[in-house]
Amino acid sequence: MHASNSSSEEQKFEVRKLQISDKNKGFIELLRQLTVCDSVSDKDFEDRFRGLSALGDDHIISVIEDESLGKIVATGSVFIEKKFLRNCGKVGHIEDVVVDSNARGLKLGKKIIAFLTEHAHLMGCYKVILDCSLENKEFYEKCGFKQKEIQMVKYFI
Amino acid sequence: MHASNSSSEEQKFEVRKLQISDKNKGFIELLRQLTVCDSVSDKDFEDRFRGLSALGDDHIISVIEDESLGKIVATGSVFIEKKFLRNCGKVGHIEDVVVDSNARGLKLGKKIIAFLTEHAHLMGCYKVILDCSLENKEFYEKCGFKQKEIQMVKYFI
Repeated sequence: MHASNSSSEEQKFEVRKLQISDKNKGFIELLRQLTVCDSVSDKDFEDRFRGLSALGDDHIISVIEDESLGKIVATGSVFIEKKFLRNCGKVGHIEDVVVDSNARGLKLGKKIIAFLTEHAHLMGCYKVILDCSLENKEFYEKCGFKQKEIQMVKYFI
Repeated sequence: MHASNSSSEEQKFEVRKLQISDKNKGFIELLRQLTVCDSVSDKDFEDRFRGLSALGDDHIISVIEDESLGKIVATGSVFIEKKFLRNCGKVGHIEDVVVDSNARGLKLGKKIIAFLTEHAHLMGCYKVILDCSLENKEFYEKCGFKQKEIQMVKYFI
């Protein structure tokens, strides 16, 4: 029965692209585990969703739904920056990776990162980058990343 | 005569947006001071220029031309990432900042960063971020930035 269980686990935690109906499956509440995120109105959500969809493969948001609960339990996004340097090269930027605190230990973060990294690779990027806290460094090293620079920030609010 | 000299200095080192004719003013050669950048054909340059122009204010490349030499001596870009978190917030990403090694000490880097930061602010971003080496940390602190996270990278080539 092990194979069957494993296959059902696979199905349960498949990475897919964000759908507009995911707003009702706790997508915003999940982002709230990462940073400040008040309630978003249905209209604002739809507007942002359509704006990002218009960018096609240049900006994708991936999610994992726990189908037994009908709940989004992991997410992460990647957008493709087009440069002049590196012979008009492209770079993938991974952002907003979060796994539900009740769904840790299932390697969902790794699945999300693998999905986003593969997307950047397929899009012809020469590298993929992300910023993270020092405490998450080890996790990203296990995903094949190496520390390179430091991130600087200026807040307007 | 000081005021007149100062005003002519100002004119000489004004920040403006990249123009397609800047390819012939050493723009690619300037990027080469930052990282690998082979020659770019006129067609590839034009394609990338038009692709980025289509993004409008969501992706701008700033340059400073030394008008007495007809040469681009500083550049930096910023693109606007649209998020769901922070109430459908926006973040400015500053990339590819470089000042010609022969034009250091004229505060051109500061002018470029101020221009890009102001653009992100006007676009409604809640923050602007960039990645840099440890040795450039002090420069960005003088521009009002603070260190926050670390940058992780995975190369495909």
